Amino acid sequence: MLNKERLFKVLSKLAPAGAHQMLISDPVAIFYLTGRWIHPGERFLGLVIAGGKEPVLLLNDLFRFDEEIGVRKVAVTDTTDVTALLAQFVDSGEPLGVDKTLAARFLIPLYDAGISPRILNSSFAVDGARALKDETESEYMRESSRINDRAMEKFRGLIRAGVTEKEVAAQCGEIYRSLGADSGNTYSFPPIVAFGINSADPHHEPDDTVLKEGDAVLFDVGCRYRDYCSDMTRTFFYRREPEGEARRVYELVREANEKAERAVKPGVRLSEIDKTARDIIAEGGYGPDFTHRLGHFIGIEDHDYGDVSAANDNLTEVSNVFSIEPGIYNRAVLGVRIEDLVQVTADGCDVLNKYPKDIQVIG
Amino acid sequence: MLNKERLFKVLSKLAPAGAHQMLISDPVAIFYLTGRWIHPGERFLGLVIAGGKEPVLLLNDLFRFDEEIGVRKVAVTDTTDVTALLAQFVDSGEPLGVDKTLAARFLIPLYDAGISPRILNSSFAVDGARALKDETESEYMRESSRINDRAMEKFRGLIRAGVTEKEVAAQCGEIYRSLGADSGNTYSFPPIVAFGINSADPHHEPDDTVLKEGDAVLFDVGCRYRDYCSDMTRTFFYRREPEGEARRVYELVREANEKAERAVKPGVRLSEIDKTARDIIAEGGYGPDFTHRLGHFIGIEDHDYGDVSAANDNLTEVSNVFSIEPGIYNRAVLGVRIEDLVQVTADGCDVLNKYPKDIQVIG
Repeated sequence: MLNKERLFKVLSKLAPAGAHQMLISDPVAIFYLTGRWIHPGERFLGLVIAGGKEPVLLLNDLFRFDEEIGVRKVAVTDTTDVTALLAQFVDSGEPLGVDKTLAARFLIPLYDAGISPRILNSSFAVDGARALKDETESEYMRESSRINDRAMEKFRGLIRAGVTEKEVAAQCGEIYRSLGADSGNTYSFPPIVAFGINSADPHHEPDDTVLKEGDAVLFDVGCRYRDYCSDMTRTFFYRREPEGEARRVYELVREANEKAERAVKPGVRLSEIDKTARDIIAEGGYGPDFTHRLGHFIGIEDHDYGDVSAANDNLTEVSNVFSIEPGIYNRAVLGVRIEDLVQVTADGCDVLNKYPKDIQVIG
Repeated sequence: MLNKERLFKVLSKLAPAGAHQMLISDPVAIFYLTGRWIHPGERFLGLVIAGGKEPVLLLNDLFRFDEEIGVRKVAVTDTTDVTALLAQFVDSGEPLGVDKTLAARFLIPLYDAGISPRILNSSFAVDGARALKDETESEYMRESSRINDRAMEKFRGLIRAGVTEKEVAAQCGEIYRSLGADSGNTYSFPPIVAFGINSADPHHEPDDTVLKEGDAVLFDVGCRYRDYCSDMTRTFFYRREPEGEARRVYELVREANEKAERAVKPGVRLSEIDKTARDIIAEGGYGPDFTHRLGHFIGIEDHDYGDVSAANDNLTEVSNVFSIEPGIYNRAVLGVRIEDLVQVTADGCDVLNKYPKDIQVIG
């Protein structure tokens, strides 16, 4: 059902750019506004929104549904002149915003037909609205991370002599579902399970590596709850306490994670939060081994628009949810990453993941 | 390495539309022309081609490579003004073709900068060139289907009492690789394994259905060889000969498949080939149960541009490769689909799949 508050939020973010109408084609944005997933494949799908007008959904008959969702539905077939149809719902004297992903095969005909004096990429309006989580979204995000916390406890229980990364990863989906994650699209991303030196590759894909004593065991995992994503990383140790440099690396990453989380409150530059973590790792002598940004926004997509990086001087706002995930990747020692999701609150932040971060020896 | 014959083929298909330059951004098209995969994610990637000029590849530093591939490489970073850079390589007085998939975030700035008096969707030039397979491509297509034939024999060997669709599907990748299919991207699409009445759903996803005596066992499977796709369907019967209506349905589909294949030669309307198969099924009384087009073009993508359907009056050309896949999906009886790839030859066609099509009882 059309969420009028979200629609209003998008339109109000659009207005400062001089636009009062937008053609939304991204299925994620349409889900955000209507609560309904429609995957059109190569076919046209468009929701036209404009201040003071009822939204109109142009929908191919192949994906027709009878349910009332609070928008006017207009049928399209494979032979419909979509541009001419769209022109009926667009004010041709006014700028028209479109999604950043709208494909040339749909966009070029809009230019050719002169549908508007100015077409602009206005994804910023939807992205900006999505970064401000409402109460329903916040509840789903919290529950998704609660499930992720409980799942992490079960994942560590899968670690036993002789097991491979792939064998562990293959069991994660079922565990998530048993804890209440979405049954259809369970993962927010395929689980990363990395043993030993594989933990030094931040994008490692689980393979046939067999666990051995002393290994670091890194889980970077997330599920969906009512379509909202979680994302957490923990690094355990199999049967042996880390010592010397390995221990020092772990403690540095943990300190970077915790200090950065304590720096989160409304009105802080995202680049400043990144710097808080990065400085700790750099001062510890591992600056070059922290090879990625500190975090990313998250919501209906695992990577929503926006990040926590040196390049982003935007300010945090109450309700933003993003990851804090410092890491040190050193092939001579080991790889460690510790990641939580945080949500900005009126006076600080709520760390959505409660799973412990101290050194844990398992197995 | 830049394939000059393919480049020439694309440019010559572009010319009749009045365009002599094109910005190619689709990674598949860039692979087709250069033999190199580059996956830019959300970043810009563009190959500018124009008659009489050296192609220029605009490539983000993140994806930089030193290998010489016969095109001029121009470095882009995350702060490059891509539109201004592109303007150096585009003739601003001439029409500019772009891919149908070029995203609005890249295309709108081209319009805003007035990069060309006319921007057109010219994917037809690349699609048209790709439909004409050269000798190298034809060899890869044949080998991909040879592997698929051998794999089908092994897949049927996986069928035994108590097995589930998912368990069978999970073993297909390893079998393909052992027969010489690509190790990285092995499948042309995830294997469809359907037992019993599941065969009546043309897009069934393997699930936990357990095999039982008398079941139809449908495999719709394909692999990649040097990036070229195969795609074949066979429908077996587990431990019991089909009788009565089930047998009749099977024979109708087989007749539709074979008659359609015999109708393939150069200069035939694709719609006519579709009709050949469809008439047989309709005359047999199952017209409404053949719910999809007869086939699709195939090559680097499982579904290349172009199809064998009532809506496509284009003529076949020598070297085209497409599928012939009639089916009857009747939940009261069973589902049967029989699919081969064919390549148009000077005087008919080469059926790339040699695997038998008679009724086979297995297990």
